[in-house]
Amino acid sequence: MVPRLTTALTGPLLDLERRILDNDTTVERWLRTQWLEHTPPFYSSVDLRNAGFKLAPVDTNLFPGGFNNLNPAFLPLCVQAAMSAIEKVCPEARNLLLIPENHTRNQFYLMNVARLATILHHAGLNVRIGSLLPELSAPTTLDLPDGQKLTLEPVRRIGPEGRRLGLDEFDPCAVLLNNDLSGGVPPMLQNVNEQFMIPPLWAGWHVRRKSAHFAAYQEVATSFGAELDIDPWLINPEFAVCGKVNFHERAGEDCLAANIDTLLNRMRAKYQEYGIGAEPFVIVKADAGTYGMGIMTVKDASEVRNLNRKQRNKMAVVKEGLAVTEVIIQEGVPTVERVDEGTAEPVVYMIDRYVVGGFYRVNTSRGIDENLNAPGMTFKPLAFETGCTLPNADLDPDAPPNRFYAYGVVARLAMLAAALELERAAPPL
Amino acid sequence: MVPRLTTALTGPLLDLERRILDNDTTVERWLRTQWLEHTPPFYSSVDLRNAGFKLAPVDTNLFPGGFNNLNPAFLPLCVQAAMSAIEKVCPEARNLLLIPENHTRNQFYLMNVARLATILHHAGLNVRIGSLLPELSAPTTLDLPDGQKLTLEPVRRIGPEGRRLGLDEFDPCAVLLNNDLSGGVPPMLQNVNEQFMIPPLWAGWHVRRKSAHFAAYQEVATSFGAELDIDPWLINPEFAVCGKVNFHERAGEDCLAANIDTLLNRMRAKYQEYGIGAEPFVIVKADAGTYGMGIMTVKDASEVRNLNRKQRNKMAVVKEGLAVTEVIIQEGVPTVERVDEGTAEPVVYMIDRYVVGGFYRVNTSRGIDENLNAPGMTFKPLAFETGCTLPNADLDPDAPPNRFYAYGVVARLAMLAAALELERAAPPL
Repeated sequence: MVPRLTTALTGPLLDLERRILDNDTTVERWLRTQWLEHTPPFYSSVDLRNAGFKLAPVDTNLFPGGFNNLNPAFLPLCVQAAMSAIEKVCPEARNLLLIPENHTRNQFYLMNVARLATILHHAGLNVRIGSLLPELSAPTTLDLPDGQKLTLEPVRRIGPEGRRLGLDEFDPCAVLLNNDLSGGVPPMLQNVNEQFMIPPLWAGWHVRRKSAHFAAYQEVATSFGAELDIDPWLINPEFAVCGKVNFHERAGEDCLAANIDTLLNRMRAKYQEYGIGAEPFVIVKADAGTYGMGIMTVKDASEVRNLNRKQRNKMAVVKEGLAVTEVIIQEGVPTVERVDEGTAEPVVYMIDRYVVGGFYRVNTSRGIDENLNAPGMTFKPLAFETGCTLPNADLDPDAPPNRFYAYGVVARLAMLAAALELERAAPPL
Repeated sequence: MVPRLTTALTGPLLDLERRILDNDTTVERWLRTQWLEHTPPFYSSVDLRNAGFKLAPVDTNLFPGGFNNLNPAFLPLCVQAAMSAIEKVCPEARNLLLIPENHTRNQFYLMNVARLATILHHAGLNVRIGSLLPELSAPTTLDLPDGQKLTLEPVRRIGPEGRRLGLDEFDPCAVLLNNDLSGGVPPMLQNVNEQFMIPPLWAGWHVRRKSAHFAAYQEVATSFGAELDIDPWLINPEFAVCGKVNFHERAGEDCLAANIDTLLNRMRAKYQEYGIGAEPFVIVKADAGTYGMGIMTVKDASEVRNLNRKQRNKMAVVKEGLAVTEVIIQEGVPTVERVDEGTAEPVVYMIDRYVVGGFYRVNTSRGIDENLNAPGMTFKPLAFETGCTLPNADLDPDAPPNRFYAYGVVARLAMLAAALELERAAPPL
């Protein structure tokens, strides 16, 4: 099943897809040489937007939570990629502790955890799930909707002076975080120096900023654009940042309005250059936000000056009730893709440097210029049936294998940006 | 489609499969740590025999010629594994020259070459096919039965003093051999020191000996057996060698007869130990033979003393008309597998250290104790539909995913043996 496009694409994006397709070996070699100098994250997922005239990442997740949405036919790809990832990080590892989010009521998320554990088991690790939930005092087995069972066990400090992280009678060599640390690093995870922590703690949202990611992405897009002789704007969402915003107190509105104005003007110029008839919009969101919280679509700077109380409340806090002070204003990329009458955007999953699958996030109650990670969203797991690695030069550039290949390429550019971002965020040795 | 077994397996092999299954993470970790010390061949295929009481490799090919027989659904696995292999050998490579066998009339083989070229292209290499055929003086495009086209170009020496191998206007960074060099290294391939030659020339059958491979395999099987507490005999075909045989002149018959006797006696003892009712047999074959040539099944030492002229002629020469003087006597492993009323044996394909697929070699005109690589053989490409990487502990040990997992494990042990063999065969630096 491949979602139909609502427009017949003939503008700049087809040119872009054609250029990626015609130069696929150049693309792969360029990426390969990048990985000689940079280390890909253990795993990642990238939300993309295909606007017909532009194909760009809009969010890169270093704690992907939808492995259960991948086509099961791609499970061997996940296992093989995980083998490669483990070989690099901790080849001698026998036991791995997987630390998930504390969402024990989200059955979909729990199926993601189960799928991840399955992948890692097949890659050759004894996997157990360590929960940070304070109320979990003993191993607890949960029934999942698909008939599987998942056992959560309380994480504890073990070994001499409690220097290691583990479970009862389980001393892992490596700890895989599937918890984005939005609320900061819990004491339980602090000062763990004897075990491999994957990804490193500074990949957590207590440290990460979308703006740092997209600054790195801009460099990657520029370099890739030069390699393939394409305008980086076609794959790069521009952005600006306001660092001292307080929505409750209406502080920082001038910064927001000025940046929105500048960005919209730049977009209008680019739209004119490419003959794009659409109305530009920007997305205003928390620079450290996740879960689709604290996000608004803006088409005119005046909108941020006239927020009502409800809107201000919505923008002021994100996951774990954290107050928002740093805000990113990102070029809005409309999506032209629709699945089952819903607005859709592709999400590409990667383990190590390999694309291992993808799916569509679909929301029937949202428009093409809105955040889809919101109530009403569903997932189409089987959408990427041809995979992202087998472009076919005999087909049109927008034929599914070719479109998915282009998606996989742009997603890998975002992953490369994440690699740069993590390098730069690493504390000095 | 999974072939039915002609017997209900309840003897030692089920125990073996169960032990591999119960210890899958140990198996994977053990293999992973082996690859820290040894380099897997770029690609390989292994012929296995499942006797019900024993599961063993009987031949390991370092120039696999049946990629076209793999389930196309596994193509992404091949591409991902090839990316990993290339990253290790020649990450900066842009152009790769693929040198196939000279079988331009074997359409199946040509489809293998086309499939290999496709895999390598998707892995990010510009691939062209260089032929060693002396009569090929210009690029020649062949039509394949599946509608594809394959262009062969004459290989030549290029660059200053002709130090490099290439084609007209094509200077490859790496050369991938899919030619087993049975007839020795052609002058065209000699003294190529500026380009990566994959696999190294000493992987060719002009140097390789089955006995060196199975000596290395015996070590691997012993070490693996110790790790999993299983009798290595259950996965290891024993063997002996006679180095000075001349079938035409009836020289070396005493050596053959004595070794056959010894091996059959050892087998009888093992059969008794495991309560196996079958009649032992050995396979006598050229130590450097390929293509199923120069092979006979022997149940009593007297048989090699009474060869008629036709039998002697058959045993005396192998591919490219080479005379046989070195002979391996290998423990015969009957196969209990049948596909479409034909005797069948699994063939497992690997790229780098990853199992990427497999198929059954089927021969309706051969018995369970005979070589199947002979006229009448066919291939069942879709047989390995579940892949070899996803064992399922909830199923019986001989359920298809588990049986295929065991096949993938034993095949990887043979690949590890090939790695050891190549290390030892390497000329001093």
